[in-house]
Amino acid sequence: MTELLGLPPALTAAPAVRAAFTPYATLGAALAVQAALARALAAAGLCTRAQAEAIVGACDPARYDLAGLAVEAARAGTLAIPLVRRLTAEVAKTDAEAASFVHRGATSQDVLDTSLVLQLRAALGVVRADLDGLTGALRALARQHRGTLMTGRTLLQPGPPITLGLKAAQWLGGVARGVARLDKATEEALVLQFGGAVGTLAALDQAAPAVAQGLARALGLKLPPAPWHAQRDRLAALACAVAVLTGSVAKVARDISLLMQAEVAEAAEPQGGGRGGSSAMPHKRNPMACTVALAAAHRAPGLAASVLAGLPGEHERAAGAWQAEAAPIAELVLALSAATAAVTEAVAGLQVDAARMRTNWDALHGLPLAERLAAALAPTLGRAEAHALAERLCAAAVAGGHTLAQAAAADPAVAARLDDAALQKLMDPATYLGQAMAFTDALMAEHPP
Amino acid sequence: MTELLGLPPALTAAPAVRAAFTPYATLGAALAVQAALARALAAAGLCTRAQAEAIVGACDPARYDLAGLAVEAARAGTLAIPLVRRLTAEVAKTDAEAASFVHRGATSQDVLDTSLVLQLRAALGVVRADLDGLTGALRALARQHRGTLMTGRTLLQPGPPITLGLKAAQWLGGVARGVARLDKATEEALVLQFGGAVGTLAALDQAAPAVAQGLARALGLKLPPAPWHAQRDRLAALACAVAVLTGSVAKVARDISLLMQAEVAEAAEPQGGGRGGSSAMPHKRNPMACTVALAAAHRAPGLAASVLAGLPGEHERAAGAWQAEAAPIAELVLALSAATAAVTEAVAGLQVDAARMRTNWDALHGLPLAERLAAALAPTLGRAEAHALAERLCAAAVAGGHTLAQAAAADPAVAARLDDAALQKLMDPATYLGQAMAFTDALMAEHPP
Amino acid sequence: MTELLGLPPALTAAPAVRAAFTPYATLGAALAVQAALARALAAAGLCTRAQAEAIVGACDPARYDLAGLAVEAARAGTLAIPLVRRLTAEVAKTDAEAASFVHRGATSQDVLDTSLVLQLRAALGVVRADLDGLTGALRALARQHRGTLMTGRTLLQPGPPITLGLKAAQWLGGVARGVARLDKATEEALVLQFGGAVGTLAALDQAAPAVAQGLARALGLKLPPAPWHAQRDRLAALACAVAVLTGSVAKVARDISLLMQAEVAEAAEPQGGGRGGSSAMPHKRNPMACTVALAAAHRAPGLAASVLAGLPGEHERAAGAWQAEAAPIAELVLALSAATAAVTEAVAGLQVDAARMRTNWDALHGLPLAERLAAALAPTLGRAEAHALAERLCAAAVAGGHTLAQAAAADPAVAARLDDAALQKLMDPATYLGQAMAFTDALMAEHPP
Amino acid sequence: MTELLGLPPALTAAPAVRAAFTPYATLGAALAVQAALARALAAAGLCTRAQAEAIVGACDPARYDLAGLAVEAARAGTLAIPLVRRLTAEVAKTDAEAASFVHRGATSQDVLDTSLVLQLRAALGVVRADLDGLTGALRALARQHRGTLMTGRTLLQPGPPITLGLKAAQWLGGVARGVARLDKATEEALVLQFGGAVGTLAALDQAAPAVAQGLARALGLKLPPAPWHAQRDRLAALACAVAVLTGSVAKVARDISLLMQAEVAEAAEPQGGGRGGSSAMPHKRNPMACTVALAAAHRAPGLAASVLAGLPGEHERAAGAWQAEAAPIAELVLALSAATAAVTEAVAGLQVDAARMRTNWDALHGLPLAERLAAALAPTLGRAEAHALAERLCAAAVAGGHTLAQAAAADPAVAARLDDAALQKLMDPATYLGQAMAFTDALMAEHPP
Repeated sequence: MTELLGLPPALTAAPAVRAAFTPYATLGAALAVQAALARALAAAGLCTRAQAEAIVGACDPARYDLAGLAVEAARAGTLAIPLVRRLTAEVAKTDAEAASFVHRGATSQDVLDTSLVLQLRAALGVVRADLDGLTGALRALARQHRGTLMTGRTLLQPGPPITLGLKAAQWLGGVARGVARLDKATEEALVLQFGGAVGTLAALDQAAPAVAQGLARALGLKLPPAPWHAQRDRLAALACAVAVLTGSVAKVARDISLLMQAEVAEAAEPQGGGRGGSSAMPHKRNPMACTVALAAAHRAPGLAASVLAGLPGEHERAAGAWQAEAAPIAELVLALSAATAAVTEAVAGLQVDAARMRTNWDALHGLPLAERLAAALAPTLGRAEAHALAERLCAAAVAGGHTLAQAAAADPAVAARLDDAALQKLMDPATYLGQAMAFTDALMAEHPP
Repeated sequence: MTELLGLPPALTAAPAVRAAFTPYATLGAALAVQAALARALAAAGLCTRAQAEAIVGACDPARYDLAGLAVEAARAGTLAIPLVRRLTAEVAKTDAEAASFVHRGATSQDVLDTSLVLQLRAALGVVRADLDGLTGALRALARQHRGTLMTGRTLLQPGPPITLGLKAAQWLGGVARGVARLDKATEEALVLQFGGAVGTLAALDQAAPAVAQGLARALGLKLPPAPWHAQRDRLAALACAVAVLTGSVAKVARDISLLMQAEVAEAAEPQGGGRGGSSAMPHKRNPMACTVALAAAHRAPGLAASVLAGLPGEHERAAGAWQAEAAPIAELVLALSAATAAVTEAVAGLQVDAARMRTNWDALHGLPLAERLAAALAPTLGRAEAHALAERLCAAAVAGGHTLAQAAAADPAVAARLDDAALQKLMDPATYLGQAMAFTDALMAEHPP
Repeated sequence: MTELLGLPPALTAAPAVRAAFTPYATLGAALAVQAALARALAAAGLCTRAQAEAIVGACDPARYDLAGLAVEAARAGTLAIPLVRRLTAEVAKTDAEAASFVHRGATSQDVLDTSLVLQLRAALGVVRADLDGLTGALRALARQHRGTLMTGRTLLQPGPPITLGLKAAQWLGGVARGVARLDKATEEALVLQFGGAVGTLAALDQAAPAVAQGLARALGLKLPPAPWHAQRDRLAALACAVAVLTGSVAKVARDISLLMQAEVAEAAEPQGGGRGGSSAMPHKRNPMACTVALAAAHRAPGLAASVLAGLPGEHERAAGAWQAEAAPIAELVLALSAATAAVTEAVAGLQVDAARMRTNWDALHGLPLAERLAAALAPTLGRAEAHALAERLCAAAVAGGHTLAQAAAADPAVAARLDDAALQKLMDPATYLGQAMAFTDALMAEHPP
Repeated sequence: MTELLGLPPALTAAPAVRAAFTPYATLGAALAVQAALARALAAAGLCTRAQAEAIVGACDPARYDLAGLAVEAARAGTLAIPLVRRLTAEVAKTDAEAASFVHRGATSQDVLDTSLVLQLRAALGVVRADLDGLTGALRALARQHRGTLMTGRTLLQPGPPITLGLKAAQWLGGVARGVARLDKATEEALVLQFGGAVGTLAALDQAAPAVAQGLARALGLKLPPAPWHAQRDRLAALACAVAVLTGSVAKVARDISLLMQAEVAEAAEPQGGGRGGSSAMPHKRNPMACTVALAAAHRAPGLAASVLAGLPGEHERAAGAWQAEAAPIAELVLALSAATAAVTEAVAGLQVDAARMRTNWDALHGLPLAERLAAALAPTLGRAEAHALAERLCAAAVAGGHTLAQAAAADPAVAARLDDAALQKLMDPATYLGQAMAFTDALMAEHPP
């Protein structure tokens, strides 16, 4: 509906992910469930193979009028009712008896939940592959810039130096942990829904287990210990896993968008291919990939909240909570897809300006190494006094337009304790990277390709 | 995209509201802005009337390939850039000079924000009329059942009696106050966006005020004191007004769905026309209208949260926050429309079973009047002792299967204080309605047709 | 602050959980981190054991003026800065040199994040034990009522029968899966934070790994591959696990509160001990435990959304996102604790009225078995016609005040197909429980004690 | 509870706002309601003046054991029940008969809702005065820097110039509109709650209107047309108004925090008084006020969502939704207070570096004026070609390290159209401020002191 408003995930997600959630895809999934059910009924001896195939033959989404179905579904409050009616009529055209086996034993929610599961499987398969691309690009960036020195920034203010490699490895850590959580949540959530009217499969009598197993097998889904019409925790956990991961992907975009600021200019996402221009400003090189990812992350918390709100639904099928759940779950997956595709492009083509990183560092006049200077003075001055002296030297350096090294060298209390060589070494950022590379390596090792 | 998943507002909103937010509608709105801009430029003397009309002539959405535009928009991060390019080319076919006036002075966000405003105006106009239908139906229900006695229920437990009229008037109060807030928020939010690249209209030089006024006039929108590219409070306030009202509409649905329970059976939404059936259960009379409204209300808080989250965007145009805002605003309006249409149907056709209301009350054996009994005894027994005695009498009535009147009559402490006639009157719910009708009248008077 | 407003989780959580998040507990945790750091420094040879013990001795929260610290913390934007200053002063009273080792190598966020982790460990330990109590109570209920027949209810309308055992087993499934997710998220999230100013531990030079390992060991926390100042995914995933589980716990409360309705009266939470009364209504038996749990679940989605919103923070330490995260995480744990304690009490003492369950079923006149009747007729009538006939028989039964069995027996189309004995058996709910008990057993087996 | 975790609003709000929501304040408000009720009962002739004063005398919060009350309230699910019990006992010590009039006619929710209203009135009064301080500071900043040129920035990239005055006036517009909305929502929401058990005031019989009016008068609150136990829209609208305004206040903080970046350095919030330091980095000048405000804004959307989620509560008093509402409303007010106080400090003491603003502009080499250059060339080159030429000139300027003016001057197509003087004037940012000052003036006029 709203695909051209702003930059919604529905427009910027991967085409195959978008395709998984179209109305046509929902119809196709619902018919796939009906076809699999027919075959499971036959396998369990409830109908003949020919009857099953008559149903299967009618389960072609192209045969149905989607717009008309949508109108009826909106009235009925579910797609399943008008679809079952039309499918039954379609089957009856060729085999009146077979028609009586359509939807046998199932309830609307069985069809719709399992359809959602099938659509999520399709969509998440695509997203998952894209995520491998992203972690690969992050790994490559971390490797390539393992030693590239840049300013560390906390609370948007400069601190001691880090490496771009560490920054990239931290991004990798967040994304890779999220992927692992997504995998686990996906495996748990993508299971068959099949319980009949109130979740007992009573209409199938003794054949119920066989039909359920056959249906699960036909669809390639795991069979859970029981239906889950009113226990939505698996889907909610999946929604949360998607939301967390979207946030971690957008974290990369946040940092790149800040590094792209003209006054920082340490990195830039690649331009071209219609991306990054401005309708009013010919010179603009906008962080469009980052913007897409950040927009996706802006949606995720509210979407996850909508899914979480539905958990305490009523009795054996909720009135309102369940029906509100599928759309935000799909939108979360679209958001993750959009963010992943955009950030992968940004990272894979990232234009790194290592020289500018050094220039920006040098422009800080060594102030972020005040911590180091204070530490070097603490053993002889005391920590509090050393901290206070370092603060005064910083102020003096700023006031005089000097470097901290210059201000320190001019201070008798420092001069009495540190000779020039020691001071120079203290003020060299390359010798103050600490565990930056070790942490980079550890993160890379924790998340191998 | 996700219109057939569950019961999303996108499927159940009024058709005209849905139509307002389709990609085609967005394209149409963006072209309407461009056409109005062209005429405003001409009126301000920046181009000729003929040039303006050349542009206006090209602003027919049917001339453009929506799918192709969507692909380019997704890349560009905005619809405006590819649209300006194509519109310019289209104009150039007939008038090369006119083409140079396309989008003159505007920035992408001017076009997209004003388009959203136009779409919201169209959609909210429809919703607003539907809301009048709802308040009318609520007023009629309150009037008709001004004296219909029913059990009051707090924390899902029975209390003293109320009237259905009061319940309906309370529903009316919540909805009507929400409509008043919506009107105010709509009036404030639906204003022109026109600021050029950074919100100064510098590209139009001295002509800027005239062009802005002409554009506002052409679109029938108010001109705010300044552009609002990075001040999104008006739209956020509108989103909140929609969310609050959706909740108040769904409150009606909550109550009706509870009254429809088979064990309560005091009211039912009308059935028929394809609504309320079940694919598995022929006997089912499902509260589908209520379910639609409750599903809409399940979405609203998360959608409002997404809009609120975008307020602290960066500098003169946010990277991510702005782009994430339009879709949830539209979805909120769709949710309100869906809830309003469904609840209007439920209220207008509500099947009230006043006899059952009385039967349900009688089945409580007068226990909810224990408060009244305690109050009658308090002057002579003391409040605490009277409360405790009433509790004991309730327990005795429950244990013995008696009414509270019977248990009270059998208690010497009561008998010493209240004769039979007094006790009967105390236990008559019709004499314990307090201000129910006065409050009903006051709420009706506060919100006249 | 707001503990007496409404029924916030802060008031209704388990006392030991509440205690874990008081300001005093935060102070204590921060000092525990400082003490452990001192010992780790000594173990790594950076200071003497005596100096470390001088620091440890000063790490007694009772020595500090909490109110004064709070004022300074509010100004400083962090507790760590005034605390380090005061701790340093306190140590200096006995050992001036030792004072210079206070907080050595650490940054504020190291102390605050690790403090939060310690507080979460304490709180979640309590919650976890309470959750075992809840799953135990659910298991007992499922076992005891494995065969207790009750009406199944979908969309708040009656359907075919289920058993209370299945209902309880479904509750168990939701809660037990949530507990498993919580365990995993807890294990992942409760790790040491230690990275120094920008996450490189540069101030500790070569000794960094040894200090980090010593600190982790002293606190009994795992050491992650790298600090996580700006990668908050583990905590966000933990917050989500808590939110999902809170929803599953509240699902139990939702159902019990509905079963407690006077018109349903199939089950009731235990009363007494100051719970469930009303200030105005002596007869009231309010579902207070359920209300507490539902109120907790009302908070959870918004709290989780707040945590998720913070993921894309800036660079090496976020300005705003990080600082907003700890409170909602704590509030989520308080909410889960409150919900768990309340629902455990409700389930463990649940007053089940099996006779009323049967009475309520009988009052439905067999209508929910229309599905079964339709299925029995479908082979000879065709599915559509059988469904339509069943609908007509339901309508006739309702109109005439008969049971569905009576209406069916009077219908020639039925009579021609089903004799009386067959009809009676069809209409017996006890023979239409399908897999209710098998699913109960499977859920119990999936989640053993 | 969680006041020292992170930087929650509960710690950083104005002390008087914090005081309004302590448990002691809640107790005091509840007792103030009881005292006012006693006097209203006397004025209506239901009890004697002496009895009323006996109750009033006992309504001193210092007489009650808050901790004990909290424990009982947690059990009872409401503060009202144990408080009524204790208050009754306290009154009975001096006047046994008077004790029977305690809480007469009221229900728990009457007391708690009205208490919340009183607490909100106290807190919002403080916040409102602070907001006047903020709008005053914004107005002063806009006035002082009406002509101060700075780079406009969209999508975090430089655009044409704006003035700091316009930026400040835009901030003012957002905040001032929010204040107007807050005023309106406050006036609507802060009304008396008084309805008795089910909202009919039946227990007070004919005296109900008089008691209600007396109670409203005694508390200085408006009397609404009816009680609103289950219609929470006014409070939800107030919560939303607070959330929107918090976002607009935090927008100021967002921009200042970005301007404070070392590489931008155009403005800085004032330091000192314990604010802005770092425990690890002596040189740090952290944007702590901005961080406080941004943290508050991170909470607001989730808190508002929690309030919105409670709107569709059950019947005459919700089970869960109502009880979950008060705490997030209070937290929103705390968040707004914290943000307002912090941003007022930042704006009032803002250190503006106008020279650096110009330096940063100059470092852009005029590229953001490419739009202007393109426009100047469009009439003779055509818009598309002019835009493309401007893009090429930008690229050439960047590649060659020249200004756009230099690149343009070297281009024959430009040289043929624009002489040097014209080019210089085109590239002068001071002549390209468009309506910056007019918009500033209009915003200031729209929101006078």
